[in-house]
Amino acid sequence: MPSKRSLAKHLGVSTITVENAYDQLISEGYLHAEYRRGYFVSEIKHPSIDCLPSKTTNYVPSPPESPQYFFDFSSNTTDAERFPFSIMAKVMRETIASGKEELLLTPPCCGVLALREAICAHLYSFRGMRVNPNQVVIGAGTEYLYNLLVKLLGAKRRYCIENPGYRKLAQIYKSNGAELVCAGLDHNGMSVEQLRESGADIAHINPTHHFPTGLTMPISRRYELLAWANEDQNRYIIEDDYDSEFRLNGKPIPTLQSIDASGKVIYLNTFTKSLSPTIRISYMVLPPKLACAFYEKLSFYSCTVSNFEQYSLASFISEGHFEKHINRMRLHYTRRRTAILEAIREHFSETECSIIENDSGLHFLLEFHTELSDARVKELLAQHNIHINCVSDYQIEGPCLSRHQFIFCFSNINMDVLPEALGMVHDALFGDLSAALATEENHEQQ
Amino acid sequence: MPSKRSLAKHLGVSTITVENAYDQLISEGYLHAEYRRGYFVSEIKHPSIDCLPSKTTNYVPSPPESPQYFFDFSSNTTDAERFPFSIMAKVMRETIASGKEELLLTPPCCGVLALREAICAHLYSFRGMRVNPNQVVIGAGTEYLYNLLVKLLGAKRRYCIENPGYRKLAQIYKSNGAELVCAGLDHNGMSVEQLRESGADIAHINPTHHFPTGLTMPISRRYELLAWANEDQNRYIIEDDYDSEFRLNGKPIPTLQSIDASGKVIYLNTFTKSLSPTIRISYMVLPPKLACAFYEKLSFYSCTVSNFEQYSLASFISEGHFEKHINRMRLHYTRRRTAILEAIREHFSETECSIIENDSGLHFLLEFHTELSDARVKELLAQHNIHINCVSDYQIEGPCLSRHQFIFCFSNINMDVLPEALGMVHDALFGDLSAALATEENHEQQ
Repeated sequence: MPSKRSLAKHLGVSTITVENAYDQLISEGYLHAEYRRGYFVSEIKHPSIDCLPSKTTNYVPSPPESPQYFFDFSSNTTDAERFPFSIMAKVMRETIASGKEELLLTPPCCGVLALREAICAHLYSFRGMRVNPNQVVIGAGTEYLYNLLVKLLGAKRRYCIENPGYRKLAQIYKSNGAELVCAGLDHNGMSVEQLRESGADIAHINPTHHFPTGLTMPISRRYELLAWANEDQNRYIIEDDYDSEFRLNGKPIPTLQSIDASGKVIYLNTFTKSLSPTIRISYMVLPPKLACAFYEKLSFYSCTVSNFEQYSLASFISEGHFEKHINRMRLHYTRRRTAILEAIREHFSETECSIIENDSGLHFLLEFHTELSDARVKELLAQHNIHINCVSDYQIEGPCLSRHQFIFCFSNINMDVLPEALGMVHDALFGDLSAALATEENHEQQ
Repeated sequence: MPSKRSLAKHLGVSTITVENAYDQLISEGYLHAEYRRGYFVSEIKHPSIDCLPSKTTNYVPSPPESPQYFFDFSSNTTDAERFPFSIMAKVMRETIASGKEELLLTPPCCGVLALREAICAHLYSFRGMRVNPNQVVIGAGTEYLYNLLVKLLGAKRRYCIENPGYRKLAQIYKSNGAELVCAGLDHNGMSVEQLRESGADIAHINPTHHFPTGLTMPISRRYELLAWANEDQNRYIIEDDYDSEFRLNGKPIPTLQSIDASGKVIYLNTFTKSLSPTIRISYMVLPPKLACAFYEKLSFYSCTVSNFEQYSLASFISEGHFEKHINRMRLHYTRRRTAILEAIREHFSETECSIIENDSGLHFLLEFHTELSDARVKELLAQHNIHINCVSDYQIEGPCLSRHQFIFCFSNINMDVLPEALGMVHDALFGDLSAALATEENHEQQ
């Protein structure tokens, strides 16, 4: 390369400009300098990359979108109008205005202390659980916490989930390389016999309000599960308490964690269900022994929730806004459920549809007394742009029998069109046309 | 159990009270009702749980704390005073005031579109990268994204990281069950020969500014790595661009992603480094083929960042605040680095210490011309409550030789005590006492 001075002169620019250009080319590796000899072009082996850019490699896919329905019985999102925006905005403003220093410190791996303390106080007053803040681990969603749990308990363990159950759980455990098995449910919840036969180490259950069946596990089965866990030191129970805040009648059911005397229960809960995806915070309560293991093995993982959200939520809880919000929402959902049940009774006779519900959570089951298969019911409703899931959709393994049970999630439905939607469901299943279709289907099967 | 009415009469309370109490006991499983016979106490097998609560199980550990030093050369956190609090607060207020509906919708698995678009625009103007927003995946921290990548590429693949390198990477890959290997560095970065010998499928590199050595990978090595990746369809390169915003002189170095014509480079970057842990958002850019695989295999995972933070950051970027902040910080860090380099030259002669830096990023290396081992240097400084890491601390495998190279991270140091700290380092290493100690150490080794 020409010397800096001669190139500058040749181009009529200042030497500094040439110097900067040479420096940049050196940094990127196109030039190199040799001491007292000057600048040289570096040899770059630009390999003939043996790949024809095909159409498929250039096609950029879109993320899967959630479809829009006229009526969606399956949506479990939060009602936008009920989110306490103004209070949350106030708390967030205060968070950003105060505590400058704290907000910028790297938080402990398990989350900021203020939030863990607020969660413990909430768990004590709301669920009667006595938990040390150091047992609490904050994470960006329960799915993230499941990932952490597989790392903590080991991917080589066998995990048992409920069948029917939450299908995503199976996907999450499998994507973490864990071995997954299922145990069926009887009328008290997960069958301990099948759990035992499965040879699992970890049982993952929803004892407060099973999804989709809505079962609440009675105290006797809870003790049986604890007994199972105590038979081997590697056995644990994951208690997923995802919508316990919304038991609409009576007092909340005590948690399995609170009757566990021997450190066998890992308790999980989320604020995404009670507050909406605006805030994405979940937490788990580890038994002391596992908390030790967590700090030892996994403390190199940074907490996945921003300080800002953690401090905001801590204030929101400790200033009493969370409890007020839960109470308000419970009242709202109770009223809504009553209105829905009435509407169902208006549209369906008792011989057409029974309602299966146990006073807890944000969904209940509709059992249609129809000859149509579950798949055909879904198909008929889809023709009217109505979406509904059936319990058999959540059958994780084994024969998928039509149970005629459909899930009605009511946390975010459009009440204005409910009567119309129910009318359409009724006509589709019990109108003249559908009777003809049912006969047709029977003929096809014969 | 007595009938509700007789118990109510006996206790002198209303029948409703007794009814509520019975209902609660039924829900929890202590009672059951038999049709036309009344209420009965359920049989509960309370198994004798065979476990004595020992002291160890009740001990709740504390999360590991970061120690406090008089001076910490290793801290890479953000300077609290420089965080654009008032602007961020304004943007956050606007986010919560507007867009109510959007905030409550479940975002796509890859994050909200507004933020992905803002990131693409930033990448185009700042790094010259042409990226489709659907190639971008948002996550709560790069560590979380590494976890996702192992799920996407497969835990059975062999991952190769740089040696010396970022130790946490090794922990993360191992905790995900992936097979980990290392390749050494020469003066151009990761040795392609060693990479090839390792039999790895995935190479994870920091080409812009390697940590800890500070190397910038020249264009020739970049092409060699791309050629390696193109030899097999399962090979990929993970380009970790963690502090490219802070190249303090000259223009930013082009990314490996931008010269990759065949979809072999996965680009990762984070806002935690440039904005502080107040916001916890990182992103990756997947080649189209991997984006397809991501949507197909992993779209069941919800995005781990809250809508609120995603929309806030999107506004912060698209309104130009991010660029302004980066420019302001670059100026600030350039001035600070100049002041630090001057202070070092004042305290150390050229025969005592050389400075190794290549004009990029927020750290540089100090090479002390001392006979003392790296470990002894750290020990001597620890006696003065000064913390420093050496390059050999980042040696992931192989013999850990003393290189006498120490890492000076300057993003969040206390400039007021810098002269005093440098004086103490000088006295400890080159004072009379230390000479005596060095001799002693040599004697011990003989």
